[in-house]
Amino acid sequence: MTETADVVELAKRRGYFFQASGAYGGVSGFYTFGPQGAALKRNIEDAWRDRFTIQEGNLEVDAPTVAPEPVFEASGHLDGFDDMLVECPECGESHRADHIIEDNTDIEEAESYPIPEVEELIAEFELVCPSCGAGLAGQAVTAFNLMFETSIGPGSSQPGYLRPETAQGIFVEFPQLKEYARNQLPFGVTQIGRAYRNEISPRKSLLRVREFTQAELELFVDPEEDEPDLDAVRDVTAPLYSAEMQADPDAATTEWTIGEAVDEGVIGDEWVAYYLGVATEWYDRVGVDMERFRFRQHLPGELAHYAADCWDAEAEVDGDWIELAGFAYRSDYDLSKHAEHSDDDFTLFKQYDEAKTVERATVDPDMSYLGPEFGGAAAGIAEALQSLAERDRTAFDGDSVSVEVDGEAYEIPTEHVNFSVDEVTESGEHITPHVVEPSFGVDRALYTVVHHAFSEDEVEGEHRNYLSLEPEVAPTFVGVFPLTDQDGLPERAREVAQELRDAGLSVTYDDSGSIGRRYRRQDEVGTPFCVTLDGDPQGTATIRERDSTAQTRVDLDDLVETLTALRTGDATFDDY
Amino acid sequence: MTETADVVELAKRRGYFFQASGAYGGVSGFYTFGPQGAALKRNIEDAWRDRFTIQEGNLEVDAPTVAPEPVFEASGHLDGFDDMLVECPECGESHRADHIIEDNTDIEEAESYPIPEVEELIAEFELVCPSCGAGLAGQAVTAFNLMFETSIGPGSSQPGYLRPETAQGIFVEFPQLKEYARNQLPFGVTQIGRAYRNEISPRKSLLRVREFTQAELELFVDPEEDEPDLDAVRDVTAPLYSAEMQADPDAATTEWTIGEAVDEGVIGDEWVAYYLGVATEWYDRVGVDMERFRFRQHLPGELAHYAADCWDAEAEVDGDWIELAGFAYRSDYDLSKHAEHSDDDFTLFKQYDEAKTVERATVDPDMSYLGPEFGGAAAGIAEALQSLAERDRTAFDGDSVSVEVDGEAYEIPTEHVNFSVDEVTESGEHITPHVVEPSFGVDRALYTVVHHAFSEDEVEGEHRNYLSLEPEVAPTFVGVFPLTDQDGLPERAREVAQELRDAGLSVTYDDSGSIGRRYRRQDEVGTPFCVTLDGDPQGTATIRERDSTAQTRVDLDDLVETLTALRTGDATFDDY
Repeated sequence: MTETADVVELAKRRGYFFQASGAYGGVSGFYTFGPQGAALKRNIEDAWRDRFTIQEGNLEVDAPTVAPEPVFEASGHLDGFDDMLVECPECGESHRADHIIEDNTDIEEAESYPIPEVEELIAEFELVCPSCGAGLAGQAVTAFNLMFETSIGPGSSQPGYLRPETAQGIFVEFPQLKEYARNQLPFGVTQIGRAYRNEISPRKSLLRVREFTQAELELFVDPEEDEPDLDAVRDVTAPLYSAEMQADPDAATTEWTIGEAVDEGVIGDEWVAYYLGVATEWYDRVGVDMERFRFRQHLPGELAHYAADCWDAEAEVDGDWIELAGFAYRSDYDLSKHAEHSDDDFTLFKQYDEAKTVERATVDPDMSYLGPEFGGAAAGIAEALQSLAERDRTAFDGDSVSVEVDGEAYEIPTEHVNFSVDEVTESGEHITPHVVEPSFGVDRALYTVVHHAFSEDEVEGEHRNYLSLEPEVAPTFVGVFPLTDQDGLPERAREVAQELRDAGLSVTYDDSGSIGRRYRRQDEVGTPFCVTLDGDPQGTATIRERDSTAQTRVDLDDLVETLTALRTGDATFDDY
Repeated sequence: MTETADVVELAKRRGYFFQASGAYGGVSGFYTFGPQGAALKRNIEDAWRDRFTIQEGNLEVDAPTVAPEPVFEASGHLDGFDDMLVECPECGESHRADHIIEDNTDIEEAESYPIPEVEELIAEFELVCPSCGAGLAGQAVTAFNLMFETSIGPGSSQPGYLRPETAQGIFVEFPQLKEYARNQLPFGVTQIGRAYRNEISPRKSLLRVREFTQAELELFVDPEEDEPDLDAVRDVTAPLYSAEMQADPDAATTEWTIGEAVDEGVIGDEWVAYYLGVATEWYDRVGVDMERFRFRQHLPGELAHYAADCWDAEAEVDGDWIELAGFAYRSDYDLSKHAEHSDDDFTLFKQYDEAKTVERATVDPDMSYLGPEFGGAAAGIAEALQSLAERDRTAFDGDSVSVEVDGEAYEIPTEHVNFSVDEVTESGEHITPHVVEPSFGVDRALYTVVHHAFSEDEVEGEHRNYLSLEPEVAPTFVGVFPLTDQDGLPERAREVAQELRDAGLSVTYDDSGSIGRRYRRQDEVGTPFCVTLDGDPQGTATIRERDSTAQTRVDLDDLVETLTALRTGDATFDDY
């Protein structure tokens, strides 16, 4: 069995995740998180919030998942958020044309090919429908928009879309959010929430789904002034797979410190470098195996035209490298697009350290001349003169100056224009902030964490599966068991469980089945520690560690303190 | 200004909530929670999770927000989840017909009237379009389904809907969830997440929106065996407004203990009574003003046909009573519906305390006789004989027995039937659990909490607005300020802020503007305490309490301990 098959089976049986609506045959790309999965997901989100919102001093918002069409007209999703669709002429199944090419030829990144070329490749390689085997040559390949569409209110006059990313809910509210940041750059806004992609053919369990959770940070910076605190991550070691390395068949992923990678120009942008450092520590913290982790730089062909640099965090799962997160320097693309499409103000007023004195050319046209002379065109002429003055002062050197309004040329005597160049003091200017975007997939982080935690060994001659989850993210931190149902042990164990709960630990109580079976159950859901009460007259209990299955005795009076120290990392099991 | 106008203004200015997509003119019924609102919402959700999931020992799941059509065919939402729509013949605006009647006549609950009657009422009262004043008499009133519809995958062959409630994501997965509960009743499953209603005309800020957050608990019980722990809430006092009181013009909401209300039959169902007790304490805990709170029983006309008893939690906001939560005993309606519409097993095997010996009548027809005699009808006849044996043993008393198969009568000699009555031991039976459902609106709880916390007073001769939020839910627990920017105070204050953060408190640091202005800012966002460092040589700092504006001095060394005690409620400000 592959690791994936084992993980998917355990995930369903133990309450991590399973395909939703199974009673009705299920629907591809939608998963329900069971009690363990929901808790693991929440813990991963909390760890992200701690690192990327609280520790970074950013602002977290919570925007709607449905937004009206103009938002996605501006963002470009309405026009460009497509996959290539090909329908089988025999069975009618829909497939991603690029995937069919990639799966059956040596071609990679088929997504980047234009549609006519994709149609040609399908014909050339005589590719067939993966469902029924019918030939696909000659079938039209079409662009299929991946947004789920709906209608807001009665009638169909107001189309709405399920957001394809949480980011737009931040960008579109920039005019309000900048007020909360007191108009000071840099500031960051985060959001953790659902996003949707109407995938043509969802697959690979949680990896390609139609509804998922993102954790995104949009950092707004002044590109001329702001710099990251690189010293905070300079010594973090990260496995980097740059565009250059990808182009060289002899090169492979290499460990770099973030500091070296910046100094040597491996990572182009300092903000991106900073977040790669922070993300490395964060993925390690939540339990991604750093031996199965890397950052891959986008190849020039993958890079959006506005992005200066972009890296993906990737993890190895069952032999494939899967994308976990993206880190992009997006310039002023997003805010400029919304400024263009709306009437709102997506700039910030940037105060100069010292006021600057600049020369400014202005006109003050004599309207008592322009009005009678040019009638209804007078106001347009005045505007055109001001615009000309800002563009080209020499135009005012002669006796008359000519401007064009609505395709008509006008000649105005310079004496009626009142042209002058004055010295003006400016305290600042309006700038459109640039955006640095670390964008994380929460479901993929969860899926990877479960995969990398999945372990097998032999205990007392028996095969054992267990999830070696980090204590911070494990759904349950400690299981509490009475050894038997005699001597008031269950009551005492329930009291202990409540004490531990009151101390803020996540606890489960279990008195059903043999102790060995209870241990196995907690091993499989990934509970780091179990406490067994056996009525010891000295007033001790046993703590058992999941991974080593080692046991130690602790005074019941010290239990809360001991387990709290194990939870916070102030102690390790070997200390006891 | 009304309280609502004040609250809505403060909510936007201070980052609680505001209408989304404002840059594009906004779209009714969608709100974005700013940094304060997102934190308050999360804190309310966490308090709910603590009480209704963790303390109750329930299982929390996280299901998709999009589900396929068969789920809502079964649940009844596809057919019955409608509002009455009337369109203005002049301006084309859509309105809720029942609201137009309620707003302009003495009629209440117009929603419960059939459509033809609503059309007649509109004509009779000569009601007009609220937007343009045109007469609506003669306009058709239609049923408008409130689910947002979309299409899953390419083409339109698979309709999907944004869930109108989180509950169905629990019901539909019952066959899997019962496994996680080890097939033992009672067990409860909770979910906190988005739900959607495509309102015809959203209004009243957060009260009638198109996207919102629910916190629901579905408790599965054996109606014959399971009972709630009523003793845990027997002494809780709750303001009750029963159906009987509502019918009596002289009766008003009355305070009852839950115990009395059950004993006197005011609350019909014990499970519902239990959750009314728990909910009373919970709403008080998160800061709903108990003087502006009540439980209102559904009138017989409001009650769903399958619901034995239903109460709403309601709060008074600006003179209106708004619905906060519903508590319903739903019998086996939900699970039975899904069992009917799918092939899955929505029952639980209920083990008897002792195995029962019952008599069971069976047949074992001689197929070597039936086959040649009746040909293709033989199998049907055998089945009909078994069914008859279970129904009516006396039918086998004579020499022959007659059954009907597909409208045809057959006579079979009893000797070929091998009828017998045997004693069988049964260890249990399959039952469909009943459902008790406490269903909470998170946005409405938040809206009410902000309203009830909104306070005004005068401090040193100046008018002050502040939010008197409970420390558990306040977005920020403590603000830390340096008195001046001299003597290293900002650095020291930043260190103190970090120490408090490390102790798990929610902290904001502020050094901009006068101290008075910083206090006002925190008052308006509802921060319970502020700490000011003034470089006191004795090493103390000032703690200021928001509501009283009283101040006290505390040793810097004791700050973490003091504030932690204030946060957990182990101490009050008056203790210092």
